[in-house]
Amino acid sequence: MNKWVYSFGPETTEGSAGMRALLGGKGSNLAEMSKLKLSVPPGFTLSTETCAYYYSHEKTFPSDLVGQVKTALKEVERLLGSRFGDEENPLLLSVRSGARTSMPGMMDTVLNLGLNDQTIEAFAEKIQDRRCAYDSYRRFIQMYSNVVLKMDHGRFEEILEDYKQEREISLDAGMEDHDWVEIVGRYKLGVLDHLGQPFPQDLDEQLWNAIGAVFVSWMSPRAITYRQLHHIPESWGTAVNVQAMVFGNMGGVSGTGVVFTRDPSSGENVFYGEFLKNAQGEDVVAGLRTPQMLTESARSATGSDIPSLEGLMPSVFQELKTICQRLESHYRDMQDIEFTIQNGRLWILQTRAGKRTMQAAVKIAIEMVKEGLISKEEAVLRIEPEGLSQLLHPTLDLNAVRDVLTVGLPASPGAAVGEIVFSADEAKVLKEKGRSVILVRVETSPDDIHGMHAASGILTMRGGMTSHAAVVARGMGRPCVSGAGELKIDYRAGTMSIGNEVLRRGDVITIDGSTGQVLRGCMEMNRMEISGAFSELISWANEFRSLGVRSNADTPQEARVAHSFGAEGIGLCRTEHMFFNNERILVMREMILASDEESRRKALNKLLPMQRSDFEILFEIMHDLPVTIRLLDPPLHEFLPQGEARIKEVAFQLGCDVEMLFRRVNELSEVNPMLGHRGCRLAITYPEITEMQTRAILEAATSVYKKTEISPNVEIMLPLILGRAEFDFLSSCIRQVAAEVESETGITISYKIGTMVELPRACLRAGEISENAAFLSFGTNDLTQTCMGVSRDDTARFLSAYVEKKLLNGDPFKSIDEEGVGELMRIGVERGRKVKPDIKIGICGEHGGDPTSIHFCHKIGINYVSCSPFRVPIAQLAAAHAALRNTHVSDKKE
Amino acid sequence: MNKWVYSFGPETTEGSAGMRALLGGKGSNLAEMSKLKLSVPPGFTLSTETCAYYYSHEKTFPSDLVGQVKTALKEVERLLGSRFGDEENPLLLSVRSGARTSMPGMMDTVLNLGLNDQTIEAFAEKIQDRRCAYDSYRRFIQMYSNVVLKMDHGRFEEILEDYKQEREISLDAGMEDHDWVEIVGRYKLGVLDHLGQPFPQDLDEQLWNAIGAVFVSWMSPRAITYRQLHHIPESWGTAVNVQAMVFGNMGGVSGTGVVFTRDPSSGENVFYGEFLKNAQGEDVVAGLRTPQMLTESARSATGSDIPSLEGLMPSVFQELKTICQRLESHYRDMQDIEFTIQNGRLWILQTRAGKRTMQAAVKIAIEMVKEGLISKEEAVLRIEPEGLSQLLHPTLDLNAVRDVLTVGLPASPGAAVGEIVFSADEAKVLKEKGRSVILVRVETSPDDIHGMHAASGILTMRGGMTSHAAVVARGMGRPCVSGAGELKIDYRAGTMSIGNEVLRRGDVITIDGSTGQVLRGCMEMNRMEISGAFSELISWANEFRSLGVRSNADTPQEARVAHSFGAEGIGLCRTEHMFFNNERILVMREMILASDEESRRKALNKLLPMQRSDFEILFEIMHDLPVTIRLLDPPLHEFLPQGEARIKEVAFQLGCDVEMLFRRVNELSEVNPMLGHRGCRLAITYPEITEMQTRAILEAATSVYKKTEISPNVEIMLPLILGRAEFDFLSSCIRQVAAEVESETGITISYKIGTMVELPRACLRAGEISENAAFLSFGTNDLTQTCMGVSRDDTARFLSAYVEKKLLNGDPFKSIDEEGVGELMRIGVERGRKVKPDIKIGICGEHGGDPTSIHFCHKIGINYVSCSPFRVPIAQLAAAHAALRNTHVSDKKE
Repeated sequence: MNKWVYSFGPETTEGSAGMRALLGGKGSNLAEMSKLKLSVPPGFTLSTETCAYYYSHEKTFPSDLVGQVKTALKEVERLLGSRFGDEENPLLLSVRSGARTSMPGMMDTVLNLGLNDQTIEAFAEKIQDRRCAYDSYRRFIQMYSNVVLKMDHGRFEEILEDYKQEREISLDAGMEDHDWVEIVGRYKLGVLDHLGQPFPQDLDEQLWNAIGAVFVSWMSPRAITYRQLHHIPESWGTAVNVQAMVFGNMGGVSGTGVVFTRDPSSGENVFYGEFLKNAQGEDVVAGLRTPQMLTESARSATGSDIPSLEGLMPSVFQELKTICQRLESHYRDMQDIEFTIQNGRLWILQTRAGKRTMQAAVKIAIEMVKEGLISKEEAVLRIEPEGLSQLLHPTLDLNAVRDVLTVGLPASPGAAVGEIVFSADEAKVLKEKGRSVILVRVETSPDDIHGMHAASGILTMRGGMTSHAAVVARGMGRPCVSGAGELKIDYRAGTMSIGNEVLRRGDVITIDGSTGQVLRGCMEMNRMEISGAFSELISWANEFRSLGVRSNADTPQEARVAHSFGAEGIGLCRTEHMFFNNERILVMREMILASDEESRRKALNKLLPMQRSDFEILFEIMHDLPVTIRLLDPPLHEFLPQGEARIKEVAFQLGCDVEMLFRRVNELSEVNPMLGHRGCRLAITYPEITEMQTRAILEAATSVYKKTEISPNVEIMLPLILGRAEFDFLSSCIRQVAAEVESETGITISYKIGTMVELPRACLRAGEISENAAFLSFGTNDLTQTCMGVSRDDTARFLSAYVEKKLLNGDPFKSIDEEGVGELMRIGVERGRKVKPDIKIGICGEHGGDPTSIHFCHKIGINYVSCSPFRVPIAQLAAAHAALRNTHVSDKKE
Repeated sequence: MNKWVYSFGPETTEGSAGMRALLGGKGSNLAEMSKLKLSVPPGFTLSTETCAYYYSHEKTFPSDLVGQVKTALKEVERLLGSRFGDEENPLLLSVRSGARTSMPGMMDTVLNLGLNDQTIEAFAEKIQDRRCAYDSYRRFIQMYSNVVLKMDHGRFEEILEDYKQEREISLDAGMEDHDWVEIVGRYKLGVLDHLGQPFPQDLDEQLWNAIGAVFVSWMSPRAITYRQLHHIPESWGTAVNVQAMVFGNMGGVSGTGVVFTRDPSSGENVFYGEFLKNAQGEDVVAGLRTPQMLTESARSATGSDIPSLEGLMPSVFQELKTICQRLESHYRDMQDIEFTIQNGRLWILQTRAGKRTMQAAVKIAIEMVKEGLISKEEAVLRIEPEGLSQLLHPTLDLNAVRDVLTVGLPASPGAAVGEIVFSADEAKVLKEKGRSVILVRVETSPDDIHGMHAASGILTMRGGMTSHAAVVARGMGRPCVSGAGELKIDYRAGTMSIGNEVLRRGDVITIDGSTGQVLRGCMEMNRMEISGAFSELISWANEFRSLGVRSNADTPQEARVAHSFGAEGIGLCRTEHMFFNNERILVMREMILASDEESRRKALNKLLPMQRSDFEILFEIMHDLPVTIRLLDPPLHEFLPQGEARIKEVAFQLGCDVEMLFRRVNELSEVNPMLGHRGCRLAITYPEITEMQTRAILEAATSVYKKTEISPNVEIMLPLILGRAEFDFLSSCIRQVAAEVESETGITISYKIGTMVELPRACLRAGEISENAAFLSFGTNDLTQTCMGVSRDDTARFLSAYVEKKLLNGDPFKSIDEEGVGELMRIGVERGRKVKPDIKIGICGEHGGDPTSIHFCHKIGINYVSCSPFRVPIAQLAAAHAALRNTHVSDKKE
């Protein structure tokens, strides 16, 4: 017999925190808290294996499940002294989803299950609160009808609105017991009307249908989207938690709330959260009512006059605080805890690792090490490298004049600029066109996920710091301002207004998620200041990693940023980028249009001093760190104008014949420029270009050495090498120029000659290439293009279909295609090292800044990665993760 | 002490035929013939190692060489009883080059060495022929001055012409002894005048300078060109043969000639050759005098009234015939023999394997097997597969009306059409522009090699069947008509005339090298009939080969040719070629321009019956042989018009909006179409195309089965597969359509699904792909492009520089780049076979018809090659070579 059901409660608990895969996050933590003897309503969990069975058996339950549920339910009844369906002392249940990893709001929940026309009266009697009982019944009918019977929410809201209008009641609080009784009647009629069948009165039917509906919600479109965004495997499935209900809507000493053990936005070690008096949990999450603060200090800081929990129920507050501290110590991580106060008694309904901003994550990890809670290794492993990019996100310039439209809650930090859109679909469409948008909603719901992902920032009218918008935005790293109550949004008209000010769809605004400000127009941005905690984290990461991290840098500005982040050198300096400025491109064109070697050399002589001075600056910035300079790579036609008008203009600038320029542009155009006359092929056909570049590099190094007495660490890199023959040919050309420069200056500059490995053939021939090359550097952009036969410029038409149909794991230009491109790299490393065991091997494609790819590079024994300057810290952290994951320390985060 | 010098002679001979690498072809055969006790003038050979020493020591000789030469020379003197430089009985020497492989006319020779003002009189006395002596002396001065002193030939010709005019002598035969004495004097003055130094009288100086000059001629431009054309390594070097002179110019019972043991043009087993009475060897080769026949039957066949050798000197003729038979049996191959008759005594100066036309080569090989001279394996190995393409060359249509301008000698078979050009340089220039030319010369010389190579055919006014033009043209497989004596050529005017008829540079003529006809204009061509010998050779090849040979065929015509050549199936049928005809391309465009799946399906439904009928015909032609059909491969924009005018025209044809067509053309254009939306990527995004093609294939197979009761052997091939995911996705799509067709027709057609392997990634993933694929077929064109990052369309700008600088072995699109592309193939075969040991693996790139690549395919264990129909026999023969070379039989040809 298979075990499908795991009980939890004050006496016997079958699960534990370690059983997350089987019981889901919620279920395993309910078990763990029960074991800790915290005040958790008893219940049981249907395992994720049950979900797997359900989907592999045409949505049916295993035959032995019914018996196991009955047994578990009996135990709950025994503990509480009540009975499910009992007409005197009925037990009410909640039925909730709970996957291995948190998917907030993505799946369905049914509360107050166990009510019908028979049990409702007993329940009212039992809780001595007829109003609360009928309120609960109508909530149950609404929720069950929506989740199980697939009726629209709006239907019930209409009924309620109509009733309120009839009776001229404005707020729910104005509804009395008989009003809810009437509503229950109308709701049931609504169901009958809609389905042609009465609302089900059979409680077993209710329970099993609710369980089935939760399983079904695992495959709802929004759950699927969420999983795709977060790379959660479909095969995991969800568990279902069936638990005795507690009620936060039982009057003035009842309530429900959410608490974080530390501030999830800043990471500060303060008690942080919200609650609503006399409410059920859904009211907090939905953001329909503005919540109350937990602490007095938070209340006074916001200037609110609504009392805090600390003020209202000081002893419950103290108990909650103690439990929070205990849970954080127990789990060794910041917790996000749901609680309900029923008639003055505190119940804990859920605990989980709290979602947090990246800034908070870093601060919390660092402080927990200092508090002795976790090790440095754990701290480093807790920070997702990719997430650091948020910290490197722009913030608003502090000195800029701000035209503030309104202020809401600072729900997710960072700033964003974009056009106003009012629907998630529109956000997605515009994003795909490359536009930046701010999604403006009254409030967000799980149906808006795709739009929130597409938006640069999110602005809502309603909802607090733990509303759906705030939680999701923080998780996604999107700036968010929530609860901007002054806003009036008219979806139909496509406008939002603040007082008399009306903004329309397409108007540009800026939001500052760190202050809650909403600003007119496009504001100047700054990169965020790197905090002390951040530096500390990176310094620990640097202790653990074995991979070197360099930066790609073509300009002094980039080199300075790279150096400030601790890049251990420049791994790729693309010399062609130096030719693209206005003055130089003219000389470059003169060189390209030269009809013979002599005039080509004349133009190259003009370029020489320009290149030399560029290199001088780079060498000075990098001191004695290696600077890898790649010789000219792109096909020459990239430097020529395209289109009649531009060609004529350039011919005029150059003072050359228009016809001739047209002809030359035409001659140089290629069918497949990616596979054309570029890379070292240019150097082979025009060795004078290589000679000029070599001279510029070595003269620059000589002059810097004279000035600073530091000898630059020069590495000359040849692009697009096929095998040893080209390498040898060009390195002898370089050595000859070097000898000339040396004899002219009397100063010996040591330099290395190495090569890009960016063609499959170069990977295969890495052995022979390594005989003479001082270093190899994988150019994984081009290697991906050639290995897979995919032009990066032309993937748009089919790549998404490939990812959708699961024919590829993802965009191979983002993370290295390990099975293909990675295999070639593995071969290249192996063959290179066989010939020269200590040859230095790097990677300088954009993959060098991608954590997944960095992990792969670590595994295959590459020496260093080189990435864009602002990704250096990400690469440093990712390299540390790779080192830690591949040695003794395993990730304790889950 | 190193041995540099190898003697040969009637008593002791140090070399043999097997020492070709060391002694060169000529030297080793002189040694071999000496051992056979044939009448060979004694002498000695300076080995190729001496040449290597010479070039690696700044053109100096090894110190011990002088002594060895002296010793060897003494032996020659002893044998002949004369002495080099003796003023009473002087020994005269020839100094000739002789590389490992024959390079006719490419290097230098000095004859009659040993004459000076002292020895000339003794020599005249000795041979009792003062006229012959002084004729020899003037020849020596001219040759030595040209070869060693680098004086122009023309200088001496002028002197001779002036003298003849003074004395009113028209022919050399009119020159008497005192005339030659006078000429010798004028020649010596000419040298003094030109060099400021007298003609050297020191005989040792003469000898050593001549030896050095022969070594130097190894690096002459024309020798270098010849080696490049024939892939002869520079490192081989040449040997130098120093041999006692014999004289064919000693009067009426003297002469010199060349004989082939079989007809080098037709291969017939007849005694074939030419000689000149009273002449030196150079006179025959240069084609300056029209030669005499050897046999009476040849003389009467040509209707010549000049006596044959058989008629003139019957006993010498018989002796020659016997020697020829002996040499052919000894060497087991057709021989090309040089002889000289000095005063009635026959001397053999050289034997070597005779160059022959491909037709002759096949016939000789087959007949030698029947004569028991060689084995079948040897016969097969003797035919260079690439050479067979000559036999598949066009010949003139026998039924066409021929407008014959004149008739010369049928010097090299086959027909050619082209524009008249009068210089080798012009031939080369026009050829590079893609034009076909006939090179017309009075006679050709080694300086014309590049032009002969560039020309489609060669026509000369002078020279016989063994003239330079004839020998070289046969070797190159170029049709040639030589000795067309009616022609008058005026280089300066750029005309050639026959009687009153004047043709100019650029006029088109046709030459028929099999009949000697020169025809006006462009004649209709046929492919040559395949002879019985050819069929026999191929049938033997088929016995030996283990590689299968299929053909690429897209049309019924191609399929029929392939089938007639015995192709074992179609290895690649490119379905897209079926869409390019006028009617279909419109429907294809309709499909491409469809805005949704429905209208796309509508257009596809129109294409379905067209494709189906194509496949029906192919299946009928191929019976039960496999027909591998590749699904649509090229990017869709290839089917759309380019350029404004064409776009407008097509919009009108299709009745669609011009703007829309422009937009669509633009949308579909790609930066790197080779790496774009093509191959199976089209099938992934538009599965309906695959569905249509699958349906067309299987419906066609069904209908052919119904008609013929032969079940077609259907193989469906997916292009541009990256890995298993795409393969599985598309094969399930194909299987679904197959099931539909089966249920509609009630007939089960068995079919295989396999894939192209044309991306590096596919080679690496060949293991997983093979799990479900029935076959793999390497697409080496695309694999070369991606492995090397080289677009075939864009190589023009750098590939020649690469080949020149020896950075690549050759054009990788001609022969597989074994180190790169081949390595990927090796990996692919290994990984595929590891998963499925019996998986069928083929190659269908153009390399499938290249002998070198076929050899490689055999080595790595590929099952079959597929090539263009007319290359099927070449592939069959190459496959046999590969099998024979890789097992027990070694090539005995050399």
